[in-house]
Amino acid sequence: MLERFKVKEEDAVRVSEAPLRQTVTDIFKKMGVPEEDCGLAADVLVTSDVRGVDSHGVSNMLRTYVQGYNQGELNARPNWRVLRETPATANIDSDRGLGIIVVPKAMEIAIEKASKVGVGMVTIRNSRHLGMASYHAMMALEHDMIGTCMTSCPPGVLPTFGAEPRLGTNPIALAAPADKEPPFVFDAATSTVAGNKLGLARRLGTVLLPGWVADEEGEPIMDEVAPPIPGYAGRASSFLVPLGSTRELGSHKGYGLSCIVDILGGVLSGGGYGANPGRPNFGHYVAAYSIEAFMDTQEFKRTMDEWIRMLKLTPPARGHDRVLYPGQPEAEATEDRRANGIPFHPEVVDWFRDICGELSIPYVLTDA
Amino acid sequence: MLERFKVKEEDAVRVSEAPLRQTVTDIFKKMGVPEEDCGLAADVLVTSDVRGVDSHGVSNMLRTYVQGYNQGELNARPNWRVLRETPATANIDSDRGLGIIVVPKAMEIAIEKASKVGVGMVTIRNSRHLGMASYHAMMALEHDMIGTCMTSCPPGVLPTFGAEPRLGTNPIALAAPADKEPPFVFDAATSTVAGNKLGLARRLGTVLLPGWVADEEGEPIMDEVAPPIPGYAGRASSFLVPLGSTRELGSHKGYGLSCIVDILGGVLSGGGYGANPGRPNFGHYVAAYSIEAFMDTQEFKRTMDEWIRMLKLTPPARGHDRVLYPGQPEAEATEDRRANGIPFHPEVVDWFRDICGELSIPYVLTDA
Repeated sequence: MLERFKVKEEDAVRVSEAPLRQTVTDIFKKMGVPEEDCGLAADVLVTSDVRGVDSHGVSNMLRTYVQGYNQGELNARPNWRVLRETPATANIDSDRGLGIIVVPKAMEIAIEKASKVGVGMVTIRNSRHLGMASYHAMMALEHDMIGTCMTSCPPGVLPTFGAEPRLGTNPIALAAPADKEPPFVFDAATSTVAGNKLGLARRLGTVLLPGWVADEEGEPIMDEVAPPIPGYAGRASSFLVPLGSTRELGSHKGYGLSCIVDILGGVLSGGGYGANPGRPNFGHYVAAYSIEAFMDTQEFKRTMDEWIRMLKLTPPARGHDRVLYPGQPEAEATEDRRANGIPFHPEVVDWFRDICGELSIPYVLTDA
Repeated sequence: MLERFKVKEEDAVRVSEAPLRQTVTDIFKKMGVPEEDCGLAADVLVTSDVRGVDSHGVSNMLRTYVQGYNQGELNARPNWRVLRETPATANIDSDRGLGIIVVPKAMEIAIEKASKVGVGMVTIRNSRHLGMASYHAMMALEHDMIGTCMTSCPPGVLPTFGAEPRLGTNPIALAAPADKEPPFVFDAATSTVAGNKLGLARRLGTVLLPGWVADEEGEPIMDEVAPPIPGYAGRASSFLVPLGSTRELGSHKGYGLSCIVDILGGVLSGGGYGANPGRPNFGHYVAAYSIEAFMDTQEFKRTMDEWIRMLKLTPPARGHDRVLYPGQPEAEATEDRRANGIPFHPEVVDWFRDICGELSIPYVLTDA
């Protein structure tokens, strides 16, 4: 995460993992989610926070989910079911169930299939937000598999040369195990930045960097610009641009990758795509590849270690002190946050205090 | 393709598809490639030219292949074989066979597996250049499948914050069928631009655009710059940067996507990765997903049509007259080139005349 989007150290309230898990589990229980699923839901959210992926942790997502349950938009007790199945594939109807609960179950099916025939691939229709996509991909790691996850989201991103959003931020995640090194974990929106960066920039009073958004006529803004403020005119729109920002810099590639997510997570789920008229739902795609189905697993993991070290030992560019690999910042954040707690903005802690009061849950996150 | 990299209309010599196929087939025969594979090799190359993907057609690739066969670096009669296999997967040793010939055979295996268990996924080690990655992905289309292809190439691209190339241009291709509309076909390097753009810029005397390459110390150059000239000092290095160009614009995403290709096409093939010390080979990855294994095929295709039209009908941004979808420019180029011939630079036609003379092949491309 860019420094500018971190909670300032002097503002941060550090919260430990265990009471956070307990509190989040309790909140899901109060939402009517079946007892056995509440710990899973908490695990998806808190794992994001522990890995430093604050955008998909409790502070950004939990209140949206609570609102979704309260408004009846999320189904707390979905009757999700497999609609179609082959030895390597399945298609699931999520019955408006929250993705953070249904998608891990879909991934378990994919892993089971991969253990039998080498690959398992599952698409999920009529679902809702799945949290941090890499959570589901990482489920494959302990099975010595490669895991992947994509999700087709509601539109907010412009196609290259377009002036109206037609695609979601449509992230792609892939996790692959190594031997001694922390696993490779990639997880990124196919837009230049994730959607919530606009809100964060507004809240933190910071500018948007060049190449993040377009103006109202679809022209990518290639200098710094104030974030859009709803109800006020401004140069920046809230239209994100695909990874690559402009055609010359390769935005047609970010656009195409976003399309792939719309096809695999959306169209191939049978539930339509992000920009489907009147469609409030998300379509998801998960897959697991058994390493042993292709080659010796130990040799794969040893080669991954060698490859990871090769990347880490790249001589750094001028002005930088090291080269990272995808998954390394999150592994380092995990070490820090397990030791020192998860840094929350005081406003997030206040929300927890309020919601615990509202739902009659004991407040245990901080002493105060 | 950006206008600046097209052969100028006034320079172009238009060549028809049929004699080009015949000539390329004859050249492969002279290289010692088995008779039954020569038409396939020609099909991969000429399909690129017909689709307007000049970078991977005969003008850029064929002479490299001829050189590879002549130097014994390419094996004209590889004993390629399946090393490991499950119902949904296979791993192939290509025995130094050219990818444009071995990878279609691997894709046939993937398609066969997908028709039985829903998904087929094949990795290929110890191989060589596979031409236009989307050729292999597109093989799935006539089987009502989604096809995908990746290839882990020798290093030329910097990791984010790195000052030495560690990754190849590592392209990703995916093809999905529609009903009435030309298919969705995405095929792009995970670097900002493909490697041969540097040579092309040199040849055409044009500048490199901002965000395409870094300087010798790994700093991305964010303004226009003269292309590097071997043996002369210059500001630009020949180090490409990942899609996204800079960290702020999201280059860690292009970098991570390139890593995914290195893992799936390289490490998971068992043959190592692009930057493996002393490794001259390419590792490939192909997969086919049966649409019917997930949902009704006709419904998928109809939804693809609707989705494609939704993208095409996006109101264009200021200064643009339409929004394209991946595969559309190539479908339009095919129509034009089938009607009017493939435009070659005269220098390419000269090369054909020379090589035909050298190999005692009748020269049939142009009248002269």
